[in-house]
Amino acid sequence: MLKVGIIGASGYTGGELLRFLQNHPQVEIVAVTSRQYHETPIKKIHPHLRDSDLVFKDIAASAMDADLIFTATPHGASMKLVPEILETGTRVIDLSGDYRFDDVKTYEKWYGFSHENPQEAVYGLPELYREEIKKANLVANPGCFPTGALMATLPLAKEKIVENVIIDSKTGVSGAGITPTSVTHYPNCSDNVTPYAIINHRHMPEIEQELSKISPVKVSFTPHLVPVIRGILSTVHTFLTEEISSSELELIYQKYFQKEPFVRILEEGEIPALSAVRGSNYAHVGSFQIDQHGRAVIISAIDNLVKGASGQAVHNMNLMCGFDEKESLDIYGMHP
Amino acid sequence: MLKVGIIGASGYTGGELLRFLQNHPQVEIVAVTSRQYHETPIKKIHPHLRDSDLVFKDIAASAMDADLIFTATPHGASMKLVPEILETGTRVIDLSGDYRFDDVKTYEKWYGFSHENPQEAVYGLPELYREEIKKANLVANPGCFPTGALMATLPLAKEKIVENVIIDSKTGVSGAGITPTSVTHYPNCSDNVTPYAIINHRHMPEIEQELSKISPVKVSFTPHLVPVIRGILSTVHTFLTEEISSSELELIYQKYFQKEPFVRILEEGEIPALSAVRGSNYAHVGSFQIDQHGRAVIISAIDNLVKGASGQAVHNMNLMCGFDEKESLDIYGMHP
Amino acid sequence: MLKVGIIGASGYTGGELLRFLQNHPQVEIVAVTSRQYHETPIKKIHPHLRDSDLVFKDIAASAMDADLIFTATPHGASMKLVPEILETGTRVIDLSGDYRFDDVKTYEKWYGFSHENPQEAVYGLPELYREEIKKANLVANPGCFPTGALMATLPLAKEKIVENVIIDSKTGVSGAGITPTSVTHYPNCSDNVTPYAIINHRHMPEIEQELSKISPVKVSFTPHLVPVIRGILSTVHTFLTEEISSSELELIYQKYFQKEPFVRILEEGEIPALSAVRGSNYAHVGSFQIDQHGRAVIISAIDNLVKGASGQAVHNMNLMCGFDEKESLDIYGMHP
Amino acid sequence: MLKVGIIGASGYTGGELLRFLQNHPQVEIVAVTSRQYHETPIKKIHPHLRDSDLVFKDIAASAMDADLIFTATPHGASMKLVPEILETGTRVIDLSGDYRFDDVKTYEKWYGFSHENPQEAVYGLPELYREEIKKANLVANPGCFPTGALMATLPLAKEKIVENVIIDSKTGVSGAGITPTSVTHYPNCSDNVTPYAIINHRHMPEIEQELSKISPVKVSFTPHLVPVIRGILSTVHTFLTEEISSSELELIYQKYFQKEPFVRILEEGEIPALSAVRGSNYAHVGSFQIDQHGRAVIISAIDNLVKGASGQAVHNMNLMCGFDEKESLDIYGMHP
Repeated sequence: MLKVGIIGASGYTGGELLRFLQNHPQVEIVAVTSRQYHETPIKKIHPHLRDSDLVFKDIAASAMDADLIFTATPHGASMKLVPEILETGTRVIDLSGDYRFDDVKTYEKWYGFSHENPQEAVYGLPELYREEIKKANLVANPGCFPTGALMATLPLAKEKIVENVIIDSKTGVSGAGITPTSVTHYPNCSDNVTPYAIINHRHMPEIEQELSKISPVKVSFTPHLVPVIRGILSTVHTFLTEEISSSELELIYQKYFQKEPFVRILEEGEIPALSAVRGSNYAHVGSFQIDQHGRAVIISAIDNLVKGASGQAVHNMNLMCGFDEKESLDIYGMHP
Repeated sequence: MLKVGIIGASGYTGGELLRFLQNHPQVEIVAVTSRQYHETPIKKIHPHLRDSDLVFKDIAASAMDADLIFTATPHGASMKLVPEILETGTRVIDLSGDYRFDDVKTYEKWYGFSHENPQEAVYGLPELYREEIKKANLVANPGCFPTGALMATLPLAKEKIVENVIIDSKTGVSGAGITPTSVTHYPNCSDNVTPYAIINHRHMPEIEQELSKISPVKVSFTPHLVPVIRGILSTVHTFLTEEISSSELELIYQKYFQKEPFVRILEEGEIPALSAVRGSNYAHVGSFQIDQHGRAVIISAIDNLVKGASGQAVHNMNLMCGFDEKESLDIYGMHP
Repeated sequence: MLKVGIIGASGYTGGELLRFLQNHPQVEIVAVTSRQYHETPIKKIHPHLRDSDLVFKDIAASAMDADLIFTATPHGASMKLVPEILETGTRVIDLSGDYRFDDVKTYEKWYGFSHENPQEAVYGLPELYREEIKKANLVANPGCFPTGALMATLPLAKEKIVENVIIDSKTGVSGAGITPTSVTHYPNCSDNVTPYAIINHRHMPEIEQELSKISPVKVSFTPHLVPVIRGILSTVHTFLTEEISSSELELIYQKYFQKEPFVRILEEGEIPALSAVRGSNYAHVGSFQIDQHGRAVIISAIDNLVKGASGQAVHNMNLMCGFDEKESLDIYGMHP
Repeated sequence: MLKVGIIGASGYTGGELLRFLQNHPQVEIVAVTSRQYHETPIKKIHPHLRDSDLVFKDIAASAMDADLIFTATPHGASMKLVPEILETGTRVIDLSGDYRFDDVKTYEKWYGFSHENPQEAVYGLPELYREEIKKANLVANPGCFPTGALMATLPLAKEKIVENVIIDSKTGVSGAGITPTSVTHYPNCSDNVTPYAIINHRHMPEIEQELSKISPVKVSFTPHLVPVIRGILSTVHTFLTEEISSSELELIYQKYFQKEPFVRILEEGEIPALSAVRGSNYAHVGSFQIDQHGRAVIISAIDNLVKGASGQAVHNMNLMCGFDEKESLDIYGMHP
């Protein structure tokens, strides 16, 4: 049994990690930490995990005796914890943005922190770095928007038929986390659509970094908050650099993702829907339509808390530990 | 492997049956029928069941070679199918209202059909009829409101401390089924609360029948449509016939349901939430508070499509076939 | 022109007061206060009031030169402001609970404050106290739940055909105010129904006070938060003390409210809907059905921010100042 | 008094026309027609218009004795009615797409009808054609998406700094009309985002027609259905042909719309919100941000049923009849 700890387990991503890990036959959860909820049973915070006997503890990673630790801590906090965990030989999957960037300067520019502890990390997108993840000690779990956006754009970069993309994303409110704010207040965000960080969301350089390792691509990105609990629908608009038909485009995607256990390419006439991936680790990618002016549209749908966070983290754990990739993640979306 | 067929599999309850059964290690799905979608792959109708190769067929039960058939057919339609299926020795779990009533006259009064084919059936609420269900050839799967309401009232009847109950239920819109109507049209039911069948919902006599077998109880029931996809929250208001404290009341419920795999009694200070049971077969029951005028309030939360329909049907199948009761149903709710 | 000030104008009730008052031909708004938003233009907080030049000020009532002041301040805060405003001869409509109770002990028991400054006040429900309101210097604007509940129960008390009522209310989230909390966080309250203060909401004694002045009635009250922005639907369940038909019951309500400008009695077959009163000062009352066990059901729908707060306050102002009762309030609900 | 008739008054746009016209001091509504609801009081269909005595009639325009008729009829139906109304000297505001196109071939290509009765019509966008509207006998009321999209793009065309635009719109479900479909069924569209007509929505050529009269602009347009009752938020992404700063861009918009009674340009730091324009005839336009790759983002928010349909139609009526432009439309949005 793999002994697993979760640091910062009281948020939504913590709850989702627990939802998947509690059913994982090769995992034993040895500790879940929360400063705020020290000694509180997790079911008081995660009401769906009713039968769990786990209790939040305010303890250090070193007191955990874990083989692998998920750090579901805020940006800027992970970097203070991760290096010393790694030193003890414990492997880490970090869900914050702290280790996602190759160039620490990019991180510092977009996150506004100076980075105290750069480490060698693998970007935890299995579709890109499966082999590296298997051997990694530190995996930087991707951001939610980059996960959805890369599903919709990686094949274009691979084929070198794209120079710039406009990504217009619509995200559910759980992406803002568990802490209430004016923006997430029901009367404000229900029956509304709210664009934010219109030209400067910090997930933009993350998307651009990964695409540009394959082919130079300029990424223009704008997220919108929509009255949805879970899910990110990303609409990619792009003028391809080669003339190509809609069915050729679909074929490129089918080929790129054909062996991927969690990516599904929709057929002509099907449209990605958040409900089809709700609660699941699947990404649905579709459209591939090209309009009269040559604009191609590719659309991806993921659950931001699963494929965009905790499900992908468990997928990474499965890879790192030699488990079946789909273990505990092989569940369907919940429609309706 | 149990060979299972589903008649009328294109609706929401059909989709949920498939979601659970596809992961069931002892079940093989041999046929799913739909008149409307004959020869359509199920993934075109149930977009979350993307990987399934099943295709809807417009075939008769007799052509199925099934050991057990779920009839997810409308009220009035099941009675035309079930008797001949039973004759061939195939067992049936019927999700309609056709076989829920002991007295066919009650059925005819409330459903407005004359009943052509009364059959011996067991009311499929495992918490009441576990042993009978195991041996039954025909199980009448309970209605969604009765399931939630009975979770909140059975212990009161058992203790004979109740003479009448007022049940004010709030249901998600999926309870209205997959067919669009003016009532389920988003602009009409979003941001709204709509009481309906205010004094004459046909689930009322079903609740009353089951309670009254234990102790005479008059049931006053009013359902409300709320802008929620899934879930029924039932608020039971009742003046108990004996003076009893809130903690004694909680104890009565804990004792009544203590061995039930899918019922959880919430502790003082906890309140049942639809999100805690979303997508799961659990019922949460709580409150047990008594106000200054002696009114007791008991509240239950279920997912209408799972515990209130397809999950309970799979639970019944597990019992009928000697499988582990929780097989394929042992999944947590999805919060948030 | 009536010179009007609003103390605590940055919340939802403040925004609604401004929405109505800005169109009122006999009103000049001389000051709107907010401690938090001192010197902020109101359009930054109330984005719909885009054309207003008003700016929040952190000033005292005495600096306002107002003929009438609305105190949209929290419970416990109003009592510290109101007496000295009254001393200067300025009339007050208080939207808090501080002056709603005849017996200061009831207030102190349910609100948990000791009351420093009891004053003579008129309970501002025009349907009950129209003549008293006209002459009042201090009007205590009713709570949102009591407003809806009284519309559905006053005629029963008047006829003395009721001894106890069970009121099961469903409220939109704006009723919780503008301050974000865990309960109002979108991922928590969307797709959910949350009962709260199940037996001890402080609006219960307010309802009971007003009914009991007419006839002794025991009130059992439970509110539920539903995923709706605005609106309260109150379902009143009661066993009447006299046998009466549904149509007689409807007639009692029609007669009771026949001259009321803002109450509408729905006909048989019509059901109150939040959308029909959304944004308007109307109360719709309907159902009047009586079930097989003698339980009568009466249902009312109001907009909690309008008839349940700011609209009713403007109605009170119109009465106090001899304006047309419906001035600036004569607008329809917004459906859909 | 202007005698006004509405043909096809039972839908959402009919309800909104009535909401505004009933308060209009210079208008008398002489007839509202509906084939389906002949002899039904309008309050049974439009529950918010409770006090109206109007009754739907299935009568011909010629039987109306109206000075002006709104045709709120489906595309393809209007063309069968409008010519003979015009012949009698009655003026018409048509809310369908039948008269929006200069070139009947474009209409036929995108709407799939052959056009039987082309007429001289003015495109009813007051910001473009105020003077022509005043004199018109037939006004073609613009589509909802074009209205929002043009607010966000007209100044760019005027300045000739744009060659192509990508318009990613998010629309509330009321835009789909009052007839229930699978797409508008609550369980399907709630908690979901659904792109549709991804490259071939018929509002695209309408936008392109109007922009291209000013300057050649290629329009790429994709609408998305979001779980919102009312409102369209349009996000325009474009690479401008001239280098320009964000503040210069804002200035261009301020100047272009400075005299418009129903367009508001938001300041830096403000973001258009559907709630700010909910129920009102205002359009809010903002953002004007330009990202590191030169993509400019302009965002507009309107209420699809008001500025995008019935409010704009009443605005057109006011212009045609020499009334105050803002008469009966001078109401604020409803936030929250």
